[in-house]
Amino acid sequence: MALPARVRVVEVGPRDGLQNEKKPVATSSKIELIRRLVDSGLVYVEAGSFVNPKWVPQMADSEAVFGSLERKPGVVYAALTPNLQGFERAMEAQADEVAIFGSASESFSQKNINCSVEESIARFKPVVKAAQDAGVRVRGYVSCVVGCPYEGKIAPEPVRQVSEALLELGCYEVSLGDTIGVGTPRDFETLLEGLLPSIAADYLAVHCHDTYGMAIANILTSLQMGIAVVDSSVAGLGGCPYAKGATGNVATEDVVYLLDGLGIAHGIDLPKLVATGSFISDLLGRPNNSKVGSALSVRSA
Amino acid sequence: MALPARVRVVEVGPRDGLQNEKKPVATSSKIELIRRLVDSGLVYVEAGSFVNPKWVPQMADSEAVFGSLERKPGVVYAALTPNLQGFERAMEAQADEVAIFGSASESFSQKNINCSVEESIARFKPVVKAAQDAGVRVRGYVSCVVGCPYEGKIAPEPVRQVSEALLELGCYEVSLGDTIGVGTPRDFETLLEGLLPSIAADYLAVHCHDTYGMAIANILTSLQMGIAVVDSSVAGLGGCPYAKGATGNVATEDVVYLLDGLGIAHGIDLPKLVATGSFISDLLGRPNNSKVGSALSVRSA
Repeated sequence: MALPARVRVVEVGPRDGLQNEKKPVATSSKIELIRRLVDSGLVYVEAGSFVNPKWVPQMADSEAVFGSLERKPGVVYAALTPNLQGFERAMEAQADEVAIFGSASESFSQKNINCSVEESIARFKPVVKAAQDAGVRVRGYVSCVVGCPYEGKIAPEPVRQVSEALLELGCYEVSLGDTIGVGTPRDFETLLEGLLPSIAADYLAVHCHDTYGMAIANILTSLQMGIAVVDSSVAGLGGCPYAKGATGNVATEDVVYLLDGLGIAHGIDLPKLVATGSFISDLLGRPNNSKVGSALSVRSA
Repeated sequence: MALPARVRVVEVGPRDGLQNEKKPVATSSKIELIRRLVDSGLVYVEAGSFVNPKWVPQMADSEAVFGSLERKPGVVYAALTPNLQGFERAMEAQADEVAIFGSASESFSQKNINCSVEESIARFKPVVKAAQDAGVRVRGYVSCVVGCPYEGKIAPEPVRQVSEALLELGCYEVSLGDTIGVGTPRDFETLLEGLLPSIAADYLAVHCHDTYGMAIANILTSLQMGIAVVDSSVAGLGGCPYAKGATGNVATEDVVYLLDGLGIAHGIDLPKLVATGSFISDLLGRPNNSKVGSALSVRSA
């Protein structure tokens, strides 16, 4: 099994996770969650989102979260910024990095951000320009890389096009999101076979949702194809807005367990991470969606 | 990705699953569960166990279950039989096939069946002999193939030894069980690399528990190494007796979704199977441990 020696885990729980949780979370709890995640060894945490609070009320307190974070040197506290206004708010809040998001599906782009894929790229242009002027790195997300709730299967070609557009714009990395978690290892293989001839693996991350229980297998396949950056969410925070009651992001604990098993370095302390997953699950009053978290916290209880 | 064209799914929910569920299930419900599983296209169902009801009260009604089953031609209704007495009961109940179980871990063998691995093989000898005389096929299980709750990691060599012993005894197939679900894809790779030089893939099945969320990835790795028989349990029935509250067998729905995604034939109707998983989960009053089952039943509700 050819695998990367080290993987960077991008923790998206405080943003992509909590944004999709029904129960609102106090600002102080978000800050505590982020502190614990960093204390577990995570060096990249997506801490908030500067979008219109009318659309995403769960992230309305992102200024306050960034304002009160203890900053640990070497850790990236990132924010999602859909437009220039959001970027400026992120800079005032001293976000270390920002992220923008495109889609591989025209229908999803229209319904999610109300413009075509091409228009979305044009809209992000001034954001990336401003970030470059400020010396701030920009990460790109691509949603619906293997499937779309409106269009069904998505071919690699539109994913390649939007990924290249984001990289050309100036993103240092593109995170390939299986937004609705429908992909299987074969889909990820086909996707990466379509992308890797024109985009080096170093520029790509995978962002898997576990809606159909395939996330860990999809990550395994991606690792075997050279991907070395994996997005995940502690305790599997985040639901799936397209399948009510279904689970969301792959759990960071499960990713770490996989990496440990494969002998891949990651720098994360699993027991601390499991305790963090229990903390936020208890706080939300919901089951822990990490299997590793459930198994290990039961053992230590 | 080199994969088998077809996989045989061995449904163990009514036995290995229900045996580890706390809530007792009425005989009539077991019969209905098995009927629905077969109606979903499963052609091999482990329907019960002829062990001492003092030790496994959940299976005390196996005679009654077998006695009232509608038998569909071409379907194997199998039973677990630890000894000659159990085998004779299974024959009276007209089980189509029987299964015996060894362990790759000495400690597990001692604690689980109260004898050494070698003694267990000797004890199974008359069972296999009687089965051969009766023209009944015998399947072998090996537990703790990558990890043991008492010994930790298990090396491939003891697994190879006990698997070969079961095959030499007369088993037509050995199912490799990750009883406590601790294995990762690397463990399965190492295990199969240790076994395949002396045992052809055709004689092996994998039996993965999803305690740590690795089952689908482990099955993927096994398929890539030529294994074409997979044990699973509808709705992920079955807990993990070694980590209270943790989940048990990999869910058949999730396995079928994986196989579909990989383009592997299996003959199972996923919507019918999902409905069967919902039926038994509702009946047990517990969450559906199949991610596919949860996602699809939520969609259709």
